[in-house]
This record gives sequence, structure tokens and C-alpha cells, in this order.
Amino acid sequence: MSIKIGIYGYGNLGRGVECAVHQNKDMELVGVFSRRSPDAVKTVTGAPVFHIDKALEMTNEIDVMILCGGSATDLPVQTPALAKLFNVIDSFDTHAKIPEHFAAVNAAAEEAGKVAIISVGWDPGLFSLNRLYAGAVLSDGADYTFWGKGVSQGHSDAIRRIEGVQDAKQYTVPVESALEAVRSGKNPELTTREKHTRECFVVAEEGADKARIEAEIKNMPNYFADYDTTVTFITQEELNRDHSGIPHGGFVIRSGRTGANLEHNHIIEYSLKLDSNPEFTASVLAAYARAAYRLNHEGAKGCKTVLDIPPAYLSAKSGETLRKELL
Amino acid sequence: MSIKIGIYGYGNLGRGVECAVHQNKDMELVGVFSRRSPDAVKTVTGAPVFHIDKALEMTNEIDVMILCGGSATDLPVQTPALAKLFNVIDSFDTHAKIPEHFAAVNAAAEEAGKVAIISVGWDPGLFSLNRLYAGAVLSDGADYTFWGKGVSQGHSDAIRRIEGVQDAKQYTVPVESALEAVRSGKNPELTTREKHTRECFVVAEEGADKARIEAEIKNMPNYFADYDTTVTFITQEELNRDHSGIPHGGFVIRSGRTGANLEHNHIIEYSLKLDSNPEFTASVLAAYARAAYRLNHEGAKGCKTVLDIPPAYLSAKSGETLRKELL
Repeated sequence: MSIKIGIYGYGNLGRGVECAVHQNKDMELVGVFSRRSPDAVKTVTGAPVFHIDKALEMTNEIDVMILCGGSATDLPVQTPALAKLFNVIDSFDTHAKIPEHFAAVNAAAEEAGKVAIISVGWDPGLFSLNRLYAGAVLSDGADYTFWGKGVSQGHSDAIRRIEGVQDAKQYTVPVESALEAVRSGKNPELTTREKHTRECFVVAEEGADKARIEAEIKNMPNYFADYDTTVTFITQEELNRDHSGIPHGGFVIRSGRTGANLEHNHIIEYSLKLDSNPEFTASVLAAYARAAYRLNHEGAKGCKTVLDIPPAYLSAKSGETLRKELL
Repeated sequence: MSIKIGIYGYGNLGRGVECAVHQNKDMELVGVFSRRSPDAVKTVTGAPVFHIDKALEMTNEIDVMILCGGSATDLPVQTPALAKLFNVIDSFDTHAKIPEHFAAVNAAAEEAGKVAIISVGWDPGLFSLNRLYAGAVLSDGADYTFWGKGVSQGHSDAIRRIEGVQDAKQYTVPVESALEAVRSGKNPELTTREKHTRECFVVAEEGADKARIEAEIKNMPNYFADYDTTVTFITQEELNRDHSGIPHGGFVIRSGRTGANLEHNHIIEYSLKLDSNPEFTASVLAAYARAAYRLNHEGAKGCKTVLDIPPAYLSAKSGETLRKELL
């Protein structure tokens, strides 16, 4: 019997979940729920499309609803609302607002007897897990998280808002020498500038003042001013040809010490190199949908995060098989 | 209130646990249990020493007993026996016998209402966890585990048994080009010889035939014959000076694909670089002792592995704090 999945919201992440569900033999995609008219939405694998209002009538047909909206305005409303009807998974990633989101979703899921798992993905998500494991093992140490090389949607958008910019793509790039210093066990204190650089590829509108655009980017507070930023002007054709992907990745490193006199150093490093950020995030969501389904079948309810889920619940394999093959 | 820990068996691993407990403010070391006469054992931090027979009388004084014996003959007997009396943690690492060990420990712990967590450490242990997470997320992919650079006790012992060898240390070394091929996403099929090399530092007895010793090492079946092995003869002084540590480490890498046509590749890499293999393993044991204690307090019983334990149980911090700080 397969796990019946719904996808709520159909952008890059929703399309990624559609592909991920397709890859998992124990899952079945019931359909995609969109605000748009179902006729106007064409799915990657031919999955049925429903208007979001239809979800209300389909509570018995869907085991887990995977929410693929944005963290700014969609998920704060949608996750608590849908947790009253379904087991749900979201990728809420506004770090500062997680406690508030958790409380709202927990109240809804508790009351409905459903399981909700929030902030699933790679950061928050797999990176959070690695910070937890590494910190629990090496209690005396320091954590470092680096992001990239990868596309930052927020920074790309910020550049596009500058007058005279037609299109842009921004890459966050970890500084190799900083990574090496961390790996050496030196426990360096690193400034923002020392950890990451920002590479911007910009298409200027015809006749625009490139020098002004470059200066505006480099001096933009919060986004670029604290970083060493490079700006390269290219044509729209070049941008489309060379920068159409959505790669990302990063590193979580903990450096810690043990021994009677803390004389031994240890490095735990976790890294991701992703060709497609949304498809990888979607694959994490699919694995946690399996966990939500199984937990709810066992009677669990309420809001959880990746930190609460026993790892074995993510796998389609039995405990016996996992012990034999993976342990 | 702190978690009261006992250490059962006092070699390198037991000393490592002693130091690890010392580093965790929510734990307290009740004592070390040894087969030797307590007077003959000097502990690193001055912890009390008891003869192992005394453990029977101390079931109310110890929350979790951490077993630090060997997998060959100690743990198959000790873990089931002690799981009748205590919550227990062991580092049983004979992969092929884990299902059998699990069954024996589970029966004992279930009956006694205790929690036992077996095969805790880094492989089995943290590496197993990473194989599970990565495989659950990237269902279409391949796993690679590399060990080293690090000291293999078994291989060092095998060299020491050769006639004319006074002392020896063997390092297992991952082949950099194989690591790079895996990281590139090529999903290579790698032979034993292509994955690791073996570096041997040997002290020959006075007048021993070094050419014969080198040939015996390189042709030893199972241990060395399938590898590119280098043998370097050094003096006992050099061995003591340059090779007295017990470093280890390794890499777990999963390469997998997503997308409608599996067109996107992803690499998940986890690695450890450890100055002291036993102290790091001990630190993992201590973190899981915390989980065993908390699970048992909630009414859980029976045998578990790292794959079953919710990550948050490893940390001394509350769920609320973890969500705020780590998620």
C-alpha cells in the first residue's frame, strides 16, 4: 500500500516534489493543488491538478500534504490551516520565526490528531541535524556553517530591483582559505567578509550606467556591503546559457576537543553539492512525508522538526533490513 | 540532577568515556568497573574503581552503564547480561553479527524494562546514520564509504605476529583520486585496491630478514594481498616518537540524481578527521547514554540502535532551545 501524497503550491519546489514522489516506489501522487485554474497548469509527470479549494473535500484521499509555498507569506497561514486537515510537511525557513510558526502549527495539528513536520530541507533541515549530532558528540567545540557555491534568490532579486538592471544572478561562494582554517582545527573567529564572497552576473539595460549599477550593488547594506563582491556584466544570452541552473550547497563543520587535557582535536564535516536546490529540498520533503505518515499511523500527533524524527522513519526499509545493510 | 554513569571495562575506550563524561556537565561518573583488582587500576580523572562483581549491587546507583569491552568475546556476553540490570550502551562493531547481538540484547532489555543502545560509535554509528539519511533523501544513487587515514589495530596486530617483527603500526589510507571520482558524480565502480592503500611502519628485530618480512606482509591474504601496500622499516624510537597516536577518520559519500529525467546530480559527503579514535568513539557513547536515560525515563525499553533514536535526545538542551539555536 503506497503513501498518498498531495502537493500544495506548484512552483520550482512543487515540481521537485512531483519528481521526488515519482522516484519513491512506496509513494503515489494524488495531485497538485494550485491557486491557478487547473487547466492552466501543466505538470511535469502528468499528475492531476486541482484548485486549492478542492483540498477540503479530499482529506480522505491524501495521507500527507507537502506544502510548497514561500516562507514569507504562504506558509505562516497555510501550514496551520492545512494541519487541521492533513498530515503536513513544510520547508519554512525564516529562522527567527520558527518558534512562532512551531507554536501555531502545533496547536492545529494537536487538535486535529495530525502530524506536522516543519522546516524540512537542508538548512534548516539536514544542516540542523548535523549541527545537533556534532554538538552532542563534541560538547567542547565550535560550529561553522558555510553556504555555496550557489544561487541566492534573494540577492539576485535585490540586484534586479536596481534601476538599469535587466536581469541578474548572484552566487554565494565560501572562501576556500576560511574553510581550510576551520578544517585545520584552529577554531578561527571569522568575520562575514572572511567567510563568503558574492559573485554577481548582471545584464544591464541598453544605455544604462554600468559604473553606477556596480557601485549600487557593492554598497547595498545587508546584502553586499559587508562582503567582497564582484560584478560581471554579461549579455542576456550569456546569462540564459551559463547561469540558468539553481545549484547550491554548503558545509557544516564542527571542530572540537577531547582528552584529559583537551589535547586531541576532531573535525566533523558535512557538505552538500547540489545541481538543483529545489529538487534536492523536495527530496528531503518526500523522505519526511514518509516519516509523518508512519508516525501518525502509530498515533503520534502535533508539530515536529527534523530534530525529533527517529532516522529509521525516513526509510522505506524495515528496521531489520536497515540494521543488516546500513549499520 | 545529573545522569549517573558507570564504565564497564577500562582500556583505551573506557578511558575515553571517562574523559567524555567529565566534559558533559549533566553527567556524573559513579565509577569504573574492571576485572582487575581495583587497587591496580589508576583512572585518568581519579574516578573510583570497582571490581566488576560489585556492579550487581549497584543497580540503583547507576542510570546508564557504558560497556567498553571488545566485540569479539566481551560484548556478546556482557551486553545481554548487563541489560538485565541497567540501561546500557555498547560499541559492538562486528557488522555481520549485529542482527544476532540485537536479538539477544533486545530479549534481555525488554524483560528488564531497560533501554539498550548497541553498535554506537562512528562506524557503525555516525557513518550508519549518514548512509541512512543520504539514502532516504537520494533514493536513486550510490553509497561510498572510505576509511582513514587512520590506524587499523587488526592490521597492526597481523604484522606483529610475523616472525622477526618487533613492533608495527599500519595506516589505512583512502586513495585521493578515488575520492575525487566519487565527488565528481561519476558513480565509479571501485575495486578494493582502488579505494584504499595500506602503509606499514615496521620495527624489525635485530638481524631479521627484512626482505622476507616485507614479502610476508604484502602477500598476506585478506589483510594486505588485495591492496597496494608500502612497508617502511624504522627504529623503535621512531615508531614511539612518530606513530604513538591512534588517529582515524573516513568519508561517507552518496552520489544521487533527481529530476524528471534524472538530469541533476547531488553529492552528500560526511567526513571525520579524528586525532583519537577511542576518545571520539567514547564521546559518541556518552551522547547516546543521555538518550538511553531519557528514553527509559519516558517508559521505553528494549534494544535500539542509532537509527532508532530521535536526534534531539542526544542533546542536553531542550527542544525549544534546539529549535531556536540549531534549526
